[in-house]
Amino acid sequence: MKKPIQKIINKMMEENVDIAFFDNPNTVYFLTGFRSDPHERILATIILKNGTSFLFTPALDEKDAKNIVEDFEVFSYLDTENPWEIIKNKLSKENHSLLNWAIEKNYLTLLKKEYLESAFPESHYNHDFSNTLELLKLQKNPSELEKMKQAGYWADESLRIGAETLKVGITELEVVAKIEYELKKRGIKQMSFDTMVLFGKNAASPHGEPGNNRLEKDQFVLFDLGVVHNGYTSDVTRTLFFGDQPSEHQREVYETVLKAHDQAMQQVQIGMTAEELDAIARDVITNKGYGVYFNHRLGHGLGQSVHEYPSIMSGNKLKLDKNMCFSIEPGIYITDDVGVRIEDCGYLDEVGFHSFTSFPTDIDTYKHLK
Amino acid sequence: MKKPIQKIINKMMEENVDIAFFDNPNTVYFLTGFRSDPHERILATIILKNGTSFLFTPALDEKDAKNIVEDFEVFSYLDTENPWEIIKNKLSKENHSLLNWAIEKNYLTLLKKEYLESAFPESHYNHDFSNTLELLKLQKNPSELEKMKQAGYWADESLRIGAETLKVGITELEVVAKIEYELKKRGIKQMSFDTMVLFGKNAASPHGEPGNNRLEKDQFVLFDLGVVHNGYTSDVTRTLFFGDQPSEHQREVYETVLKAHDQAMQQVQIGMTAEELDAIARDVITNKGYGVYFNHRLGHGLGQSVHEYPSIMSGNKLKLDKNMCFSIEPGIYITDDVGVRIEDCGYLDEVGFHSFTSFPTDIDTYKHLK
Repeated sequence: MKKPIQKIINKMMEENVDIAFFDNPNTVYFLTGFRSDPHERILATIILKNGTSFLFTPALDEKDAKNIVEDFEVFSYLDTENPWEIIKNKLSKENHSLLNWAIEKNYLTLLKKEYLESAFPESHYNHDFSNTLELLKLQKNPSELEKMKQAGYWADESLRIGAETLKVGITELEVVAKIEYELKKRGIKQMSFDTMVLFGKNAASPHGEPGNNRLEKDQFVLFDLGVVHNGYTSDVTRTLFFGDQPSEHQREVYETVLKAHDQAMQQVQIGMTAEELDAIARDVITNKGYGVYFNHRLGHGLGQSVHEYPSIMSGNKLKLDKNMCFSIEPGIYITDDVGVRIEDCGYLDEVGFHSFTSFPTDIDTYKHLK
Repeated sequence: MKKPIQKIINKMMEENVDIAFFDNPNTVYFLTGFRSDPHERILATIILKNGTSFLFTPALDEKDAKNIVEDFEVFSYLDTENPWEIIKNKLSKENHSLLNWAIEKNYLTLLKKEYLESAFPESHYNHDFSNTLELLKLQKNPSELEKMKQAGYWADESLRIGAETLKVGITELEVVAKIEYELKKRGIKQMSFDTMVLFGKNAASPHGEPGNNRLEKDQFVLFDLGVVHNGYTSDVTRTLFFGDQPSEHQREVYETVLKAHDQAMQQVQIGMTAEELDAIARDVITNKGYGVYFNHRLGHGLGQSVHEYPSIMSGNKLKLDKNMCFSIEPGIYITDDVGVRIEDCGYLDEVGFHSFTSFPTDIDTYKHLK
């Protein structure tokens, strides 16, 4: 945990920043190891240029935080207290300049900035560390990669449970319920987002929601899911064919997505830009005439959060580098017809892309399950 | 759906605001009926003073939004496009002043404001409608109250499932899994927050997390849970005693919390301030010497979100009024010893407080279940 803090302090010295105030719960977790959703309350890490670091929490969280956090002094406020006054009083004892503040412009609200300005009216809030923090999270260390592989294992396991649950007449929600029930029994507390199980046409909406649709033969079933395990997320998508034989149209759409997925996985390498990787998959789909139906970026980074840098999309010239973790997830969505997406997340090194998930992608593997 | 929009337009005229830009997904849902989590993308309602209203979504969401939304023109952007440019182009066709903007200061980030400023450099962003929006959500109409009662029914049902699942040796997570599995089978897709089932000392942390603790006899079991049903949330807490006979200490703590809960429920009335209601429950607990162990506000509002106005706490002089919905949830948390909380949510009218939940609160009701 000390390393990212040191990099932040270096950056503070470089930019002549006196104090850093980060109130994004993901940042707090990244820096301190303490995860909590403060809702409308305030949870923040406060770092002074001299290295003194604080974790400020609602009183509710104080004890839990103290049990987890090292190298940060934990202090807190009651619902009946003014948090900004408590922060001001605490910092006034430090005898440290509070002139130039670093904040997260991609998280801090206008309202909270106004509260800061009221408490510290002489200060400036011009240093945006959003990007610095995202970049610090970009390259994972071996221990983080190991946790992400474990999270991937449970995503694969979720797919197995889901695939075995499929039968004619079952609803999407029943499949979701079964997956999450079996996972919770195995000790997996949390999904990384709402589990998606979509039948047939419902999968043609990339933001479709599981409902009471009943499974029929000769439909695709799209699973998009992941877990949070030891603080790290996984994310995988498979589109299984449920029936005897996919139609030619179904097979063509599926094979096009699979080819896009496979070529991106095989060709990605260190030094390639994010937009070049996006183009590899997109070209496959466009060349088959389905370009207009692939209406989202190829992928997103993930780690402690399920959406981080790098964004794998046109326009992003970031060079992909060792130990960056991201998804490769091309899709084709033809409204009222068919939706197919195939997604694996993994990390990059000198050898290539190493997926955290390995559930089969062959369209014929699961169709005979029933 | 037309009514809140009209009130916003009235407020815009009153304050001479030309355009309102709201990007909080809860606000978007409140105004348009369309719910989606845009993650790092942009989802916003844009309202002009002349009544023209837009819903701006990621391309992914466009079709779903168009199926749901009335009275708003839906437009969208691809990941490869600059959303702020798309908005600018759209609005430039309206021939409408864009000088004075209303925004939500409690949601809009500094970064998004900077993007708005780049796209509309001549404009001012000084009108904060955060409070206006919260106040619009405060008093529910009969159809909303009916939905909240239904959501409450499923919270009670969750408690019944949970209570029946309890047995020596079961883990907290297994109970959570069982509750959510049974609900999903009944068509309830979503909990309003992570279901909490905490045994014994673990319940002494108001933010405790369910884990692999195994249930023993003579422990309290704290359930805190709720569902989202037809777009409205519920939230209930019960602390059941599992065993033959609570100790005197357990019983005293429990009865103190129950008395605080009951007195607040019975005495709350229209015209009372939020802080007066908090004091009714707090005084009961303080008079018994447990004041220091009740370290959170008495309650929070709820509706489409599980945390809304009114905040029932010291310092809040808001007068409680007809059809406001909120929780009454006193608790006592003695670290490494015992944690008890009892919570009901309901609405207020001339007669009094009407709880959405009615699961028994008597400490002896459930102890003989096993």
